[in-house]
Amino acid sequence: MIDLTLLGCGGGMPMPNRHLSSLFININGRKILIDSGEGTQVAIRKNKLGFKSIDIILITHAHGDHIVGLPGLLSTIGNSGRTEPLILIGPSGINEVINGLSVLFKYLPYELKVIENPKKLEFVFNKDLIELSSNDRCEFVLNTKELDHSSPCLGYSLYFKRRRKFNLEKALQMKVPKELWSKLQREESVEFNGVTYKSSMVLGDERRGIKLSYVTDTRPIDEIIDLVRESDLFICEGTYGSDEDINKAIKNKHMTFREAASLAYKGRVNELLLTHFSPSINEPKDFIDNAKSIFKNTIIGEDGITKALKFTN
Amino acid sequence: MIDLTLLGCGGGMPMPNRHLSSLFININGRKILIDSGEGTQVAIRKNKLGFKSIDIILITHAHGDHIVGLPGLLSTIGNSGRTEPLILIGPSGINEVINGLSVLFKYLPYELKVIENPKKLEFVFNKDLIELSSNDRCEFVLNTKELDHSSPCLGYSLYFKRRRKFNLEKALQMKVPKELWSKLQREESVEFNGVTYKSSMVLGDERRGIKLSYVTDTRPIDEIIDLVRESDLFICEGTYGSDEDINKAIKNKHMTFREAASLAYKGRVNELLLTHFSPSINEPKDFIDNAKSIFKNTIIGEDGITKALKFTN
Repeated sequence: MIDLTLLGCGGGMPMPNRHLSSLFININGRKILIDSGEGTQVAIRKNKLGFKSIDIILITHAHGDHIVGLPGLLSTIGNSGRTEPLILIGPSGINEVINGLSVLFKYLPYELKVIENPKKLEFVFNKDLIELSSNDRCEFVLNTKELDHSSPCLGYSLYFKRRRKFNLEKALQMKVPKELWSKLQREESVEFNGVTYKSSMVLGDERRGIKLSYVTDTRPIDEIIDLVRESDLFICEGTYGSDEDINKAIKNKHMTFREAASLAYKGRVNELLLTHFSPSINEPKDFIDNAKSIFKNTIIGEDGITKALKFTN
Repeated sequence: MIDLTLLGCGGGMPMPNRHLSSLFININGRKILIDSGEGTQVAIRKNKLGFKSIDIILITHAHGDHIVGLPGLLSTIGNSGRTEPLILIGPSGINEVINGLSVLFKYLPYELKVIENPKKLEFVFNKDLIELSSNDRCEFVLNTKELDHSSPCLGYSLYFKRRRKFNLEKALQMKVPKELWSKLQREESVEFNGVTYKSSMVLGDERRGIKLSYVTDTRPIDEIIDLVRESDLFICEGTYGSDEDINKAIKNKHMTFREAASLAYKGRVNELLLTHFSPSINEPKDFIDNAKSIFKNTIIGEDGITKALKFTN
């Protein structure tokens, strides 16, 4: 099960009653954070979510409302006792930005591994760490797309694989030694007494995993439809609620609720969660119909709103 | 009159119910800010204080809890419509830090003038701007002292001069032409018909101004006593309330309430305001007696607490 907390739903600048847009993802105790604007570490504290087990930070882009909180957050993660490496992923230019900001975190007690503008990455969940996959095993796939904003910006989709069921009948039929079953079940191949055993010899069919997408800040471009296709949850910026703000959206390279909903519809996602509201919108829910008329299964983000994503069937 | 707002009273890291230590100073509509940790711009908003007329930012040192909010704040000041230069003052190394952080504010609509580790600066209040004094005129003097912390750190004292009274009798006796009175009253010298007129020819005696001091983060050193001597208000870090935390204070280069109070006593200040409380202190007021037993006129900082400093007599 994947537990999500939308730490904030604001865009542009931090406001007294609305934290900046950021997503906290908890997968069996290991954590992934998307974006860290000013105040994100305060929101993590408010929601009692903890710092030490944040293994990956994804940064969409280097505008202040998405990254200003990073130096303080990295320091606080250091103060929490973390010594394991932390992977930080961002768009083109992220290395230069991190180098600049590093004047504020010269001595972290852990290694910060920065990955700039990757297309696709594969990860495994080890007991105490999410790590880049170094062999066939892959439990979580990250895909990215370059978005259309005023600064290099990445949209992210995260696909969490579901383990295939163990097929006892098949294992017995293939005469796989019992002592290899657990390794094969983790989808690793095993050499044993000169014979190579593959996981397919004990596992049933592939099963659908969980797909989560996060897209902000951008104009609506076709690449987003590919990225988010059939997501269980598509978290998307809706900077402007009113259709009348379309010219502002075009000028500032953002989207209206209606445009975000259109991407959700075309991408055939299961559910759309809107976030990154302009400080000029007091009550985003007033504009929900502009999204729902295009894509019914829309919800409006709020600070601290939680979602649990489960494997289906 | 000088209006002060303590924007936050926390040290170390931003907490959900306590903003980081920062002081907002309003002198007839022109503003000076001391320190900008993560969330300071949110606290400015909460207190409805405005961004556009912040003319000077003093940074005590480049630890995250005093400077992480700076890039967002500078951007927000830019968004507020400011085009006048802004003076930023900090300790040794501040130029390098600002250069690093500038990856987040590449295009400000105003000039940022950074002054590194000054000993003393003199300023004038012009109608729409506080500026460095370029002639005899000086209305506000900034003095600094290097403190004893784990990073280069400056303590600040601000002395706001009081205008001398106009002395009509003297002006008439000295035969100063009437049309020169207002210029001379602003303490500028004037040449007129080949004669040099000095402001002392129309002004009464010097009058005591207002002295405000701000000292954090540091161990208590004798230089602080000189810096803060006879301040109307001495704002000082008291990271630890309990005397039992003296070893932590020594190790982390901070002070206990008692140590701060001792500086206030030795500096013969009028009033002591404690701030920069460790996140481990839930209720700083529980420890006030540790300060009051040394220096009676002590108050404990709170987020948003205000003070008005007036000229006396």
